[in-house]
Amino acid sequence: MSHIDIEITAESGLELLTNDEISRLSEHSKGGEYELFKKCVLAVLTSTQVTDEISFHEEQLKLFDIEVLQLNKGVKLKLKNAPAASLVDGKMIQGLKEQVFSVLRDIVFLKQELESNSRIDFNSSNGCTNAIFHILRNAKALRPGCDPNMVVCWGGHAIPEFEYQYTKEVGYRLGLRGLDIITGCGIGAMKGPMKGALIGHSKQRISNGRYIGITEPGIIAAESPNPIVNELIIMPDIEKRLEAFVRLGHSFVVFPGGVGTAEEILYILGILLHPRNKNTPFPLIFTGPKESASYFERIDQFIADTLGPEAQEKYQIIIDDPVAVARATQQGVLKVREYRKKNHDAYHFNWQLHIQWDFQEEFVPTHQNMAKLNLEADQPIHLLAANLRKAFSGIVSGNVKEAGIKEVAKHGPYTISGDVKIMSQLDALLEAFVSQKRMKLDADNYVPCYRVINPQSKSEPATV
Amino acid sequence: MSHIDIEITAESGLELLTNDEISRLSEHSKGGEYELFKKCVLAVLTSTQVTDEISFHEEQLKLFDIEVLQLNKGVKLKLKNAPAASLVDGKMIQGLKEQVFSVLRDIVFLKQELESNSRIDFNSSNGCTNAIFHILRNAKALRPGCDPNMVVCWGGHAIPEFEYQYTKEVGYRLGLRGLDIITGCGIGAMKGPMKGALIGHSKQRISNGRYIGITEPGIIAAESPNPIVNELIIMPDIEKRLEAFVRLGHSFVVFPGGVGTAEEILYILGILLHPRNKNTPFPLIFTGPKESASYFERIDQFIADTLGPEAQEKYQIIIDDPVAVARATQQGVLKVREYRKKNHDAYHFNWQLHIQWDFQEEFVPTHQNMAKLNLEADQPIHLLAANLRKAFSGIVSGNVKEAGIKEVAKHGPYTISGDVKIMSQLDALLEAFVSQKRMKLDADNYVPCYRVINPQSKSEPATV
Amino acid sequence: MSHIDIEITAESGLELLTNDEISRLSEHSKGGEYELFKKCVLAVLTSTQVTDEISFHEEQLKLFDIEVLQLNKGVKLKLKNAPAASLVDGKMIQGLKEQVFSVLRDIVFLKQELESNSRIDFNSSNGCTNAIFHILRNAKALRPGCDPNMVVCWGGHAIPEFEYQYTKEVGYRLGLRGLDIITGCGIGAMKGPMKGALIGHSKQRISNGRYIGITEPGIIAAESPNPIVNELIIMPDIEKRLEAFVRLGHSFVVFPGGVGTAEEILYILGILLHPRNKNTPFPLIFTGPKESASYFERIDQFIADTLGPEAQEKYQIIIDDPVAVARATQQGVLKVREYRKKNHDAYHFNWQLHIQWDFQEEFVPTHQNMAKLNLEADQPIHLLAANLRKAFSGIVSGNVKEAGIKEVAKHGPYTISGDVKIMSQLDALLEAFVSQKRMKLDADNYVPCYRVINPQSKSEPATV
Amino acid sequence: MSHIDIEITAESGLELLTNDEISRLSEHSKGGEYELFKKCVLAVLTSTQVTDEISFHEEQLKLFDIEVLQLNKGVKLKLKNAPAASLVDGKMIQGLKEQVFSVLRDIVFLKQELESNSRIDFNSSNGCTNAIFHILRNAKALRPGCDPNMVVCWGGHAIPEFEYQYTKEVGYRLGLRGLDIITGCGIGAMKGPMKGALIGHSKQRISNGRYIGITEPGIIAAESPNPIVNELIIMPDIEKRLEAFVRLGHSFVVFPGGVGTAEEILYILGILLHPRNKNTPFPLIFTGPKESASYFERIDQFIADTLGPEAQEKYQIIIDDPVAVARATQQGVLKVREYRKKNHDAYHFNWQLHIQWDFQEEFVPTHQNMAKLNLEADQPIHLLAANLRKAFSGIVSGNVKEAGIKEVAKHGPYTISGDVKIMSQLDALLEAFVSQKRMKLDADNYVPCYRVINPQSKSEPATV
Repeated sequence: MSHIDIEITAESGLELLTNDEISRLSEHSKGGEYELFKKCVLAVLTSTQVTDEISFHEEQLKLFDIEVLQLNKGVKLKLKNAPAASLVDGKMIQGLKEQVFSVLRDIVFLKQELESNSRIDFNSSNGCTNAIFHILRNAKALRPGCDPNMVVCWGGHAIPEFEYQYTKEVGYRLGLRGLDIITGCGIGAMKGPMKGALIGHSKQRISNGRYIGITEPGIIAAESPNPIVNELIIMPDIEKRLEAFVRLGHSFVVFPGGVGTAEEILYILGILLHPRNKNTPFPLIFTGPKESASYFERIDQFIADTLGPEAQEKYQIIIDDPVAVARATQQGVLKVREYRKKNHDAYHFNWQLHIQWDFQEEFVPTHQNMAKLNLEADQPIHLLAANLRKAFSGIVSGNVKEAGIKEVAKHGPYTISGDVKIMSQLDALLEAFVSQKRMKLDADNYVPCYRVINPQSKSEPATV
Repeated sequence: MSHIDIEITAESGLELLTNDEISRLSEHSKGGEYELFKKCVLAVLTSTQVTDEISFHEEQLKLFDIEVLQLNKGVKLKLKNAPAASLVDGKMIQGLKEQVFSVLRDIVFLKQELESNSRIDFNSSNGCTNAIFHILRNAKALRPGCDPNMVVCWGGHAIPEFEYQYTKEVGYRLGLRGLDIITGCGIGAMKGPMKGALIGHSKQRISNGRYIGITEPGIIAAESPNPIVNELIIMPDIEKRLEAFVRLGHSFVVFPGGVGTAEEILYILGILLHPRNKNTPFPLIFTGPKESASYFERIDQFIADTLGPEAQEKYQIIIDDPVAVARATQQGVLKVREYRKKNHDAYHFNWQLHIQWDFQEEFVPTHQNMAKLNLEADQPIHLLAANLRKAFSGIVSGNVKEAGIKEVAKHGPYTISGDVKIMSQLDALLEAFVSQKRMKLDADNYVPCYRVINPQSKSEPATV
Repeated sequence: MSHIDIEITAESGLELLTNDEISRLSEHSKGGEYELFKKCVLAVLTSTQVTDEISFHEEQLKLFDIEVLQLNKGVKLKLKNAPAASLVDGKMIQGLKEQVFSVLRDIVFLKQELESNSRIDFNSSNGCTNAIFHILRNAKALRPGCDPNMVVCWGGHAIPEFEYQYTKEVGYRLGLRGLDIITGCGIGAMKGPMKGALIGHSKQRISNGRYIGITEPGIIAAESPNPIVNELIIMPDIEKRLEAFVRLGHSFVVFPGGVGTAEEILYILGILLHPRNKNTPFPLIFTGPKESASYFERIDQFIADTLGPEAQEKYQIIIDDPVAVARATQQGVLKVREYRKKNHDAYHFNWQLHIQWDFQEEFVPTHQNMAKLNLEADQPIHLLAANLRKAFSGIVSGNVKEAGIKEVAKHGPYTISGDVKIMSQLDALLEAFVSQKRMKLDADNYVPCYRVINPQSKSEPATV
Repeated sequence: MSHIDIEITAESGLELLTNDEISRLSEHSKGGEYELFKKCVLAVLTSTQVTDEISFHEEQLKLFDIEVLQLNKGVKLKLKNAPAASLVDGKMIQGLKEQVFSVLRDIVFLKQELESNSRIDFNSSNGCTNAIFHILRNAKALRPGCDPNMVVCWGGHAIPEFEYQYTKEVGYRLGLRGLDIITGCGIGAMKGPMKGALIGHSKQRISNGRYIGITEPGIIAAESPNPIVNELIIMPDIEKRLEAFVRLGHSFVVFPGGVGTAEEILYILGILLHPRNKNTPFPLIFTGPKESASYFERIDQFIADTLGPEAQEKYQIIIDDPVAVARATQQGVLKVREYRKKNHDAYHFNWQLHIQWDFQEEFVPTHQNMAKLNLEADQPIHLLAANLRKAFSGIVSGNVKEAGIKEVAKHGPYTISGDVKIMSQLDALLEAFVSQKRMKLDADNYVPCYRVINPQSKSEPATV
């Protein structure tokens, strides 16, 4: 891969900064945020291949350099050793340029702006929701007055081709219905729905389709945002990212995935099971191709066994029928519209939904935190869901996040314990993920990063 | 395939008609044009599959019915037994609706409008060019004041997958450079560049990319316009269609194809070799993947042998390098821009290019007309090119057009004769097409529709 | 007034012409249409003063020259000795440029285009309406899909300041309600409503307000279109102009005026009284300031006496209340909307309204034609209205149109005769106009161009 | 004047607020800001008359009430006893609604937002400029990438009709050249240029003309923003308002006025005379009709006598020639463009211009502050200009601002003293203003609010 130096001028709302802001930006970008900023920008710039996603090497990252220039006219970035493929005839591809400035906006600018604002408070539930609104507003992701049409698609990045094709087909059917897409902005089930929707929109002559990718610093550097993403938003951590999804989306489609997808499912069930959210319409569909039916059977069984029928009522499973998924999604969106209209609620942000502090606070998956998770049966189901969510979150971290991988390398697998029956079901589910090769891209050599303390487990010796 | 009845209201400039116009339209659509109109609309409506192009059956055509309704408010179409796949939740897909009304506009409305205009005259060279301008203007395809950026892509519809991928890759590189695409609007090399450009445009955040498909009644019913086409234009016959390409385009890329592609190449060379066009810049690139290099070697050889080095100077061959093709195309476009600017010429229509009457008059490939083609060596090369073009045109007709196929079935293959050396080269070229399976989609059972009268030919017995 | 030479390039839909069209345009503009074309363009170019309307002198017209240049790129106009005030720093004011090309479009281009179209037929009622649609469509004045909001304002050009202020105030109130304005495009009651609406629109932040001026060659040269007019349309003669008003407008407001206004009133009453238009909603309001109340009392009396109460039901008189006028107008527009919606009728053109041939055929006010007008009482009232309209039309011509003035100078005043009672009322009305100084701008020296044969008339001697 | 209750929903960037922001807004609006907020909104709502500007009475203000409602959907205002003339058929006029929300944005929302931002610092020169940028950016008044075209027009509100007509004519000529207008947003010379430009823009078919009114709380309640203003910005005090003018504008036109205009002239001269601004192009034109020539002669003399020829070089005086003013303005704008382009400077904000702290700090015109102003001759001229500016500022306050009027009522006229020659010239200038009736609208009964300590003054006794 060849490299090149280039200067680019601001986008994404950074066209208008005071001299002080630019100066702080410049300083900040050289300081503590520098490495993260560089990583994220390089991730964006290496996503340019049409047919494949090649991530960058450490070597590249060392060579790559980025400098924030201060002009009276605004901010300019000077990139050194940027991947040449991000340019066309000496000019950076517009979509990538926008994504680069989204990184600057969210990683560097926003961070220090939030710090300077005494009203921003991530340490309370209400403050957290307000801060998320701030970030989304600053990214111009909130559009008042527009009819609800945002579909959040969740699912794995390491999925087989036939599942990818299915996500694309569903996206196509959603796009034909004028629906926009939000995903986690990587590959697999995060890319397929966008690609499909792009074709659907194009056939319906919709030229302003939105393909929103919401990511977080711990993930973006590993998973390049796919190039269809035309609105890239980087939330501070996984909890804020998950909240951004549910506040922004009007309907939710979950494709097969691994532990990350399970985390998302438990997250949303935990919220929906809270008594205050009982009556809020929240369309939630699990779907996959025929061949993946067993995946959702497994998940459904796990939910039935751990959280019970009340939880099962919160979602609908549709197998191998993209048109039915699209129709159900659209009907769900219409119900949301009606409900918010009746309640004089905003279309652009789901203020009504109650999210407990437990779901908002950053969960740091240390061995200690993982070990002391309360996974006993004698607690309200929305709390059990919350804790199961954390367990899955820890496993995701141990699988793919830099920090988690290091922890596990140092201290061995996480220990998770709790109610015997729940442990047994959890163990079975994780085992199924392993055998379905849903844990990591390099599935054949997967070594589990967790150990379920469950006397009945047949697989225990294998996980050590 | 399920069917459905539906009513749709006017688009494509047919929103505003006088009562008389609607009444004539309605009458006309029931009269002589009815069958053609039906066929074309059905062709449009059966192009909705994402992954494959299924053409319709005779049976379907019989069931399908279309009626023009006259309202004070405008024109409405009533479709009976339309393919259900053309609808989403009871509403016709916008892109298809626009294409349907483009058919109505060009096949029914325009035809009778041109008849009523005493100034339209298809029987002179100048009149013909003016009429083509009329048709393109009526289709809103001419946009004054826009910088030149239209790339015409020619090539076969029956091409192997790796050639298709190559056309897509070239289209992607053109799209990244902000160039728009014009093709013959079917599959293969007519679809690939559009699909690639769509992705390229999307990455550059160009939301108003143009994907123009120019077709003609004899072809559209057999080759559904692909759904990316957002401007469908139906010219009266193949000669007008070819002229529309060269008047509208600013740069020309030719991919591998069969006889049809050879016809296009001879057509454009015949024009460029005319002394009056000597100084007009006209970027013309032949390109294909590595594996198809031999195809253009063959063509190049044929041109060298029959028309000589002057003809060879008119084009450039680039093998297996999409980026180089895109760059050369863009440079060509800039040269065209400069030239027209200097000469106070229009950007939107190539008035300067001289096209002889010979290239404009409809050539009807009867056995008699084919037999009496002058393919002798003792004529100006631009006339020889013109006659060779007609020979290829006849073979295309005998291969895939309804009328030609019937003629050949009745009277046997066409006879083509002329200068011994030219005949021998023509024979060799055609033979190569046959052996490269470039003659028809069902290549293995191809029975030639022509006979080259060439004493040296080894292949002659095979062609009988 | 200083003069200047300038070249301007095409607008108003003339950007895209075939070479043949430009060539015919160029020829035509030098031929029979030359004088008329020049006059109209000069009229447009002399309307640039902010505070006053200065018409041009014969001397200026002689010096002024206009040439249509043919470029491959399109059409260009070369103006010699154009009024310098039409330019700002060497560039023609955009609004004037657009108006100049509207003149070219309607006077030169359209004329010859209509001639070349065998389907255009001004000699039948239906053909006439279709031709009017053609002209309006060509001028892009028809906009399908827009909600009805066009208010036609009629009234005199030679009105006192307080009446002018009143028309402005009414226009302001209409503009505040988002209504657009159509007038005859000169000064007085044709300018006031536009100026008022401009301010109203600006306060409502409506930036695309339409100020349509519909004129005809016999009038435009004498009455410069005021500079607010952003859509100038020139109909072939007074009858087509009147029909264009009623087909295009959704609501009608009549301000005080002279014989011309009376002509308009009789014209519309004649149409509305036709049995076929009985149920068509057609909002028609007569309004003026307190001081002008007597004007409409006089008109109302005349209608009562000649056409009777059925005619009086067709309109509403509102004195000195601009807000009430605006409200009634808007309610009328809403009724029209409902009615057309229910009847699947177009919003952009009133196809439903039946207009008799009598109202469409050009009435040439020769002495003979005026003398033989049937103004007897024993005919259907809609026919009587039609004939009274013609009588007024003749008087307008004798007052202000070049042809009429010459006729009267040669043969003396027109003679009008008929039913004794009607003649007496007509006589009284005309006398009132004379005494109210509504006949001509130079009111004090007015010499009537007509003679009402009415034995009871006290004023007869005076009119000779 | 009748009154009415109404609810209106947010505009001006307040469509998207967090629940916390709305809640703070609601609280704030009831608290300390309530009276000011009410006053300003009422000022906006009473500016609806076309022909005249009626300010509101104390009585009205008491009846009038305004409440900020908090909805999940956003913010809503509930107005009680609003002037009925601000509504059309029950809906508030869009332009007024926008202005009302601009008041809310700048008076209530912005204030508390700035307070919460630890980076905003009004106590340093750089901080002040950054804060002004913040306010303008928040009002969306900064548009990066647009060519310079903003003309600041200064001049009196209490001017005779012929001067008003002149400002309108100049505005018309500026508008014809595509220039936008910034004024202080009241009547007189603040309204005329906008009204003229509106007509000029309309003739040039410019539909997005900008008419920016920059005001401050101490003035807006007394001077309603005129209804043409389509961007209303309220700066915290007179110094910030003056800085906003010079940072935003590209060219400056000064019409005749009174002490306020003199203050503006001294302000800008003080800045331009600072050595660091020596080379910055800053087009500054003083202009008025023939009859007002003496006004600028007087001012020019005063500047010559006090600040000298260096100061006189900073401006150009053009008498009675609107076209020359417009041309000079446009040339000035082009020079600014060139200069900023060359220096890579922003077009949207004049960062380069150095403004001393002395011009930024709020000057509170107490008797003590006025008395101790250093008006001696032995100081750099840019400092003398700064102090003279303060003297004029105090007189404006004593004339028309609530606080100043009270001070003077209590303690008698301000005392101004200094260099004998300067005092004498100041005295003469002020006297001229009094005799030209430029001090107050009610000019005949003007009682001076100042006393120039100048032994030579003949007028001294009169000012007591």
